[in-house]
Amino acid sequence: MSIVFSPSLRCQLPIVLLLLQVVLITIFALFVSYDDQPSAAFLTNVTKESNNDLDALFPFFKDVQLMLFVGLGLLLCFLKYYGFGGMAFNFLIANISIQWALIVQGLLYHYNNGKIHINLENVMNAEFAAATSLISAGAVLGRSSPVQLLMLSLVETPLFVLNEWLINSYFHVLDVGGTVTIHIFSCYFGLGISRILYRPELRAGHSKISTTNTSDFFSLLGTVLLWIYWPSFNSIQAKHNVAQHRAILNTFLALSSSTLTTFAVSSLLDKRGRVSLVHLQNAVLAGGVAVGASADMMITPAGAFGLGCAGALSCILGFQYMSPFLDEKLKVQDQCGIHNLHGIPGILGTVGSILAILFGRVDFGGQISIDLPKPNYSTEDMFRAVESKGAWDTTSQALNQTAALGVTFGVSLFGGYLTGLLLKLPCLFHPSGEMCFDDQSYFKLPTDSSAKWEPEPQQQRELVIPLKSV
Amino acid sequence: MSIVFSPSLRCQLPIVLLLLQVVLITIFALFVSYDDQPSAAFLTNVTKESNNDLDALFPFFKDVQLMLFVGLGLLLCFLKYYGFGGMAFNFLIANISIQWALIVQGLLYHYNNGKIHINLENVMNAEFAAATSLISAGAVLGRSSPVQLLMLSLVETPLFVLNEWLINSYFHVLDVGGTVTIHIFSCYFGLGISRILYRPELRAGHSKISTTNTSDFFSLLGTVLLWIYWPSFNSIQAKHNVAQHRAILNTFLALSSSTLTTFAVSSLLDKRGRVSLVHLQNAVLAGGVAVGASADMMITPAGAFGLGCAGALSCILGFQYMSPFLDEKLKVQDQCGIHNLHGIPGILGTVGSILAILFGRVDFGGQISIDLPKPNYSTEDMFRAVESKGAWDTTSQALNQTAALGVTFGVSLFGGYLTGLLLKLPCLFHPSGEMCFDDQSYFKLPTDSSAKWEPEPQQQRELVIPLKSV
Amino acid sequence: MSIVFSPSLRCQLPIVLLLLQVVLITIFALFVSYDDQPSAAFLTNVTKESNNDLDALFPFFKDVQLMLFVGLGLLLCFLKYYGFGGMAFNFLIANISIQWALIVQGLLYHYNNGKIHINLENVMNAEFAAATSLISAGAVLGRSSPVQLLMLSLVETPLFVLNEWLINSYFHVLDVGGTVTIHIFSCYFGLGISRILYRPELRAGHSKISTTNTSDFFSLLGTVLLWIYWPSFNSIQAKHNVAQHRAILNTFLALSSSTLTTFAVSSLLDKRGRVSLVHLQNAVLAGGVAVGASADMMITPAGAFGLGCAGALSCILGFQYMSPFLDEKLKVQDQCGIHNLHGIPGILGTVGSILAILFGRVDFGGQISIDLPKPNYSTEDMFRAVESKGAWDTTSQALNQTAALGVTFGVSLFGGYLTGLLLKLPCLFHPSGEMCFDDQSYFKLPTDSSAKWEPEPQQQRELVIPLKSV
Repeated sequence: MSIVFSPSLRCQLPIVLLLLQVVLITIFALFVSYDDQPSAAFLTNVTKESNNDLDALFPFFKDVQLMLFVGLGLLLCFLKYYGFGGMAFNFLIANISIQWALIVQGLLYHYNNGKIHINLENVMNAEFAAATSLISAGAVLGRSSPVQLLMLSLVETPLFVLNEWLINSYFHVLDVGGTVTIHIFSCYFGLGISRILYRPELRAGHSKISTTNTSDFFSLLGTVLLWIYWPSFNSIQAKHNVAQHRAILNTFLALSSSTLTTFAVSSLLDKRGRVSLVHLQNAVLAGGVAVGASADMMITPAGAFGLGCAGALSCILGFQYMSPFLDEKLKVQDQCGIHNLHGIPGILGTVGSILAILFGRVDFGGQISIDLPKPNYSTEDMFRAVESKGAWDTTSQALNQTAALGVTFGVSLFGGYLTGLLLKLPCLFHPSGEMCFDDQSYFKLPTDSSAKWEPEPQQQRELVIPLKSV
Repeated sequence: MSIVFSPSLRCQLPIVLLLLQVVLITIFALFVSYDDQPSAAFLTNVTKESNNDLDALFPFFKDVQLMLFVGLGLLLCFLKYYGFGGMAFNFLIANISIQWALIVQGLLYHYNNGKIHINLENVMNAEFAAATSLISAGAVLGRSSPVQLLMLSLVETPLFVLNEWLINSYFHVLDVGGTVTIHIFSCYFGLGISRILYRPELRAGHSKISTTNTSDFFSLLGTVLLWIYWPSFNSIQAKHNVAQHRAILNTFLALSSSTLTTFAVSSLLDKRGRVSLVHLQNAVLAGGVAVGASADMMITPAGAFGLGCAGALSCILGFQYMSPFLDEKLKVQDQCGIHNLHGIPGILGTVGSILAILFGRVDFGGQISIDLPKPNYSTEDMFRAVESKGAWDTTSQALNQTAALGVTFGVSLFGGYLTGLLLKLPCLFHPSGEMCFDDQSYFKLPTDSSAKWEPEPQQQRELVIPLKSV
Repeated sequence: MSIVFSPSLRCQLPIVLLLLQVVLITIFALFVSYDDQPSAAFLTNVTKESNNDLDALFPFFKDVQLMLFVGLGLLLCFLKYYGFGGMAFNFLIANISIQWALIVQGLLYHYNNGKIHINLENVMNAEFAAATSLISAGAVLGRSSPVQLLMLSLVETPLFVLNEWLINSYFHVLDVGGTVTIHIFSCYFGLGISRILYRPELRAGHSKISTTNTSDFFSLLGTVLLWIYWPSFNSIQAKHNVAQHRAILNTFLALSSSTLTTFAVSSLLDKRGRVSLVHLQNAVLAGGVAVGASADMMITPAGAFGLGCAGALSCILGFQYMSPFLDEKLKVQDQCGIHNLHGIPGILGTVGSILAILFGRVDFGGQISIDLPKPNYSTEDMFRAVESKGAWDTTSQALNQTAALGVTFGVSLFGGYLTGLLLKLPCLFHPSGEMCFDDQSYFKLPTDSSAKWEPEPQQQRELVIPLKSV
């Protein structure tokens, strides 16, 4: 038996990463070039407007970076023995996904003269794609090796791009905050994978699935950071300043009402009136997910408020009743509760956007305001253009929203299921039960670590010997 | 005795929150609407300038959010067993205060045609109001239940709005950083409450009032974050770009000199030359409070420097000599030392602003530069307008500043005193001594928590049985 | 023996700080004044453009503040018993350096009519100078008293300003991200000091040089924050919007490829395939250092990618092979590994910039794009101006880059060596071996601290008795 080709972590992670690095750098060298904006060649015919793109874009870019790398990274740190895994693998997978998405999205949208032309906006769109992989990975947090997560990212990224292209091109979905394209997609993709990587022994619990005050506190800190920058996230794609203002305002109101609802409902469900930290870490964000699809529409402040309440309520009820059901009946283990934070509030939000489209013409003198996310013209332009042609009506848009939800649901669940089968291939390193939820499997930890677990001699061998079955 | 109506946490927190949620959503549905800026109706006559409002406002908005939810949240986490209480209740009360302030300020300033018209700027002003409640709550940190804090916020918010309106309308107070309106007000309101909620048994100390390295470190991290974004806080209300630049610069200089003074004086006061963590967590920010009232004036760099030194010095001396005096002689327990960070440096800063107004005409060719915070015209406009009319003179403005300080002092102390009586009503849940400073009373904590305290059976009963007396 | 004049911490830190405070405030009072931008006097002839300076500058200013005070502060917190030392002394030294640099840089660049004229941009440039001191201090982290660090800052700041002026004036170095001026300079200055403050007993290790999961996690969090804002850092000095866009993009790509390389190589070097936390905390940033000198040039995306890979690789190899060599052969102890993060990748980056200058004319129709950092005209202006005059050619610029590297290397190493001798003067407080790497020497810690070390009676005396020799 050759050690070199055994699917051990010792060999797989560095080899796969180095290989990927070489492939990526080759593609970049051969096919990737600066877009006009950061390029000197464009300088002679550069206009005032294109210059300003950077000023408008860069603050949002930084907010998204903070959300992905710090906010989400901290949120995933709630496990006692898997803090570095949560933070550092989030960091690694995010970077792989961004580089890969730059190429995939570049080929689809920015390819001409034999080159992919990139600028900062492309990087930001790639970060949206990365968010998808990171959310999906939450479903199997601590139960999958970095090599598996890397594979997940390599498969999910093009599928995300494909699905986004599909529902934008065919259904002209209105979804400024990515409720359908990002949250629904990543949730059901992750659940599909989780179904395949099901570990029956986890049903009885796992000795390392526990939290400490400090790990829970870090996670809560991540939640608060995500909460603060969520209005940025939901408003980036709103092209017009007025729609952007509205998206920020609606998202803030939804998040704020989510917070009250979370404290109220979580406290109500405990017989001693205490608030659950899991609810706190998740449900206060549910309003941001729920309002995503309609954040730039004229849903009224009360509408945003209501979506926030409903989102938080559905998220907490999901943790209370849906997660056990998924685990026991459908054999889907959802480590971070992504179904409760992204799935259920996402469906709710899509329904909300449909209602807003159907009944939204009542405010401010009968004008509806909706934004097509991608094109440069604003909702109002679209509305006027479309009204004059008579081609657009609320009913068909509502149907389109529904279709986009259905297509995304199908693509992601099926894609996740197939990806799960890929991740389970015996040639990929799959952590044994003992290695799960433990930083020691992947990181050189301080000797006086609070983690007391030490691999048994037999388990230590597993680290360099191929696993026949999972 | 009916359990349902007993003033236990089990019933009170969720019921009061749900009730509040329903009331707020009803008010929003009936009376709150978008302002012109985020509204599509305004789109036809939207101007370039109004579009730019968002770009100018949004970065400051995010800074304030970071200060309130992360900076202040972390700062309040210094207690060993009350980290979640510090962070999460800060988060809850902030959100309640913002929603409530949106309505109260909206009724006063943005009500027409039967609707309150809101935009992002209103939310930011509501966050200033929220800051007031959060600072006041620091005086009774860990000693009051979330229901009491909620009541505090519901009473303090309108009183803050009233006081601000009063001293702006009648005294045209110059206070760009909210030294009087926010810091002085919240400090004495909090002390008033603390006087009523006095617990004599705490004088001998409390077994749970202690810190750990980690909790103190989180608190210090919060301090540094507040320190970084304080220049934003002090410059938001400066309408003119030049005054804003000056406010940022002066605030930075004051904070920077505060930092040196803190290390120097704290080290000087210890017989082994060590720096106190409490001083570090608070006094480095005192310069930001002290310079607040005059940050946009021509106080010269050395003036800002001096205010920073004086602020930090007064803050440390406050911790050393004033806090024990307040506790022992005046029966005012000040858990977070808000009197030392907000009260004393605030008074100092108001005196500084008076001196700057009286003697400020010496720099740069005899021009004084002061900003009226609220109106859209800048200090210089005001100065010119006022000079030509001859209506404005430095002496009367100095008297106005003094009057504003006096009125705020009276309103806040008296208001806090009355609010304290309200919070002590037997129908409100008031934590027993054993429950104080302990997350376990309010949160479901990890089982292997570092908190070893477990409620005795008798105490557990207290959780569902009304407390006759405090 | 007089206690008052003994070089004990008890006396030295507060006395030196208070003295410094008085000196600084006097200088500020006598010589420092507002620049035109924040000054009211300028208001009459203020132009739209100058107003916009603040809007362009302030976001970058805040990013740099976050990097210095939180990012770097946290990064330095990896030691188990020296978390407050890492964070708080970083905070103190940063502030001293900024105030001092404001004066030194002001005298050199902004002095006229007997006054130094400052604005926010000056503060930001002073923060760059402060970064130098903070990086250098990393080499002797925990082994030097705050008084020594303060002296370090007082000497290094003017030397940094002098060296920067030298290589800008004489060699017109192209170094938008400060690879030569900041990273190389601070690294070899710090190593020079470390050589003199060599402690042979540390070669066998020190009982307090250890980390915990929590301290390592805080440090990693600092790394991620630095990583996020590094594109800001590298692009601030790019004056033209196009060059700035390019600098952001290149820096992001370099950092992102650094991250992959770090995981791959670190995992490859461990026999069980685990990732080292030290590598993770440092090498993911090496790409930002390496790309600094050429971030605004047309190095192509693949070039940025390659620099990132090479930077991370060199950093990890440095930790693996160079640091032991420095310690054992050259008697240079490098506590934070600044040579691996700033030195080696810095040299690599300078070589990269030379190659970019020599071979950079191939992209986008043969146009090269390079930016002179300081002057207000952009690279392209310079390029055109210079081409027409025929005065500028790539070879001489490449030689200039090399000369700037050589000069900086010499000045910093020699300067650091001399400064080390100064720091070792018996009149300065130098911590005993027992006091090293321990917060208890400098801070009043919580009683139930995780730090179990208590000074022996004999050591306690050391705290107030002069140390004759080190």
